[in-house]
Amino acid sequence: MTDHPLTAAVLLIGDEILSGRTKDKNLGFIADYLTALGIDLREARLVPDVQEEIVTAVNALRARYTYVFTTGGIGPTHDDITADAMGAAFGVPVDHDPEAVEILLKWFREIGREPNEARMRMARVPKGAVLIDNPVSKAPGFQIGNVFVMAGVPKIMNAMMDSLAPRLSRGVVMQSRTVEFNAGEGDIAKPLGEIQAQYPMVVIGSYPFQSAKGFAANIVLRSRDEAALEEAFTAVTALAERLAPKG
Amino acid sequence: MTDHPLTAAVLLIGDEILSGRTKDKNLGFIADYLTALGIDLREARLVPDVQEEIVTAVNALRARYTYVFTTGGIGPTHDDITADAMGAAFGVPVDHDPEAVEILLKWFREIGREPNEARMRMARVPKGAVLIDNPVSKAPGFQIGNVFVMAGVPKIMNAMMDSLAPRLSRGVVMQSRTVEFNAGEGDIAKPLGEIQAQYPMVVIGSYPFQSAKGFAANIVLRSRDEAALEEAFTAVTALAERLAPKG
Repeated sequence: MTDHPLTAAVLLIGDEILSGRTKDKNLGFIADYLTALGIDLREARLVPDVQEEIVTAVNALRARYTYVFTTGGIGPTHDDITADAMGAAFGVPVDHDPEAVEILLKWFREIGREPNEARMRMARVPKGAVLIDNPVSKAPGFQIGNVFVMAGVPKIMNAMMDSLAPRLSRGVVMQSRTVEFNAGEGDIAKPLGEIQAQYPMVVIGSYPFQSAKGFAANIVLRSRDEAALEEAFTAVTALAERLAPKG
Repeated sequence: MTDHPLTAAVLLIGDEILSGRTKDKNLGFIADYLTALGIDLREARLVPDVQEEIVTAVNALRARYTYVFTTGGIGPTHDDITADAMGAAFGVPVDHDPEAVEILLKWFREIGREPNEARMRMARVPKGAVLIDNPVSKAPGFQIGNVFVMAGVPKIMNAMMDSLAPRLSRGVVMQSRTVEFNAGEGDIAKPLGEIQAQYPMVVIGSYPFQSAKGFAANIVLRSRDEAALEEAFTAVTALAERLAPKG
């Protein structure tokens, strides 16, 4: 547990998300995961399978946030260039890691696959990297500096998050309360803005939707200061009752 | 139709996606939409409801790509700061737009809502902006320069894309072919890499999955050069047949 704010960014790597062919499911998973650990996700970027783009993005993000989590591009095919991009970003060579080689050779023996050159590419990591265990399909991810490099396939990525989580510092978990309003945002806005001004330690967001009864909104309050959160929650709840349709 | 490559970036704005509370659905929709128009989505970013972050991101993206599409932050509440952020990014004042005021006043009359200060904030746009029609809930989006500013609610955003689409140039649509392999990526990688090297005008991606029969992968070929695409597709199809399990 630390008193400093722990921050993070996500870097999604892959042409298939940019083309629309694959719909990303990793960002939301990582966002939930980090929120539960008290780590603030502050930014995300999506870049194509182009080394220069990956290098620029990861260097911008790792300088700015406590942690960076990347997904995609660590398989055996020609379009899997994330390991080389991370080597270029950190200015270190990329080579076969003895521990990763051992894991893969054992796995290929078990499943009766030939450990050819392409498959063994998955054991290549930048110098100084520490492996991230992959209980699903064995080929490991890796951590270099404050950057965690994971697979793009959601099932594998999710398992890798569990593997690396013990290495992360944990912050005070952000608490949240939600108040549903049966009123339009336009009626909520002014008094809600006044409550926000009164409780600067609470971040208040307004998310409108259409209910069967008409305009509605979820007002979400988030804070690490529990006392302030409860006071603001009481004020917002009273406002919701005041604005509710009479009858 | 233009011979120059048309490029685009998406900027998602909103704390609720970063916290994991809301799972983004807009990126995939815009990606599919642009692909169908022959416009290449090259990058996406997600930033919080913080003016400085929005300004930095939109200025980086609008300088680099033909178009930028933003979602989120154009409602009536205190956390809706996108119009002001765009004004700051373009260095222009933000004020009530007469056309937007008229649209909103008419709408509020029709639905019997009071046109209060908060609601009329939704008529504020940066100087020089052109409105984007919102057939769902009337409050318009706007275009300033090459930046299209849309709502975050998917139903509204989708309708705004239809409204603004006639303003976009169209490129040669990227064609794609998919070949399913009943083989592991590790066996596909080397010969596939050779086909990729032979057809540089075709972007070949490999997306592994587990089928009932074991390891499998979808190989996706994308190109604007139809002849090259067909040749590469023939070569990849032959490879899939060669690698298919015998029996």
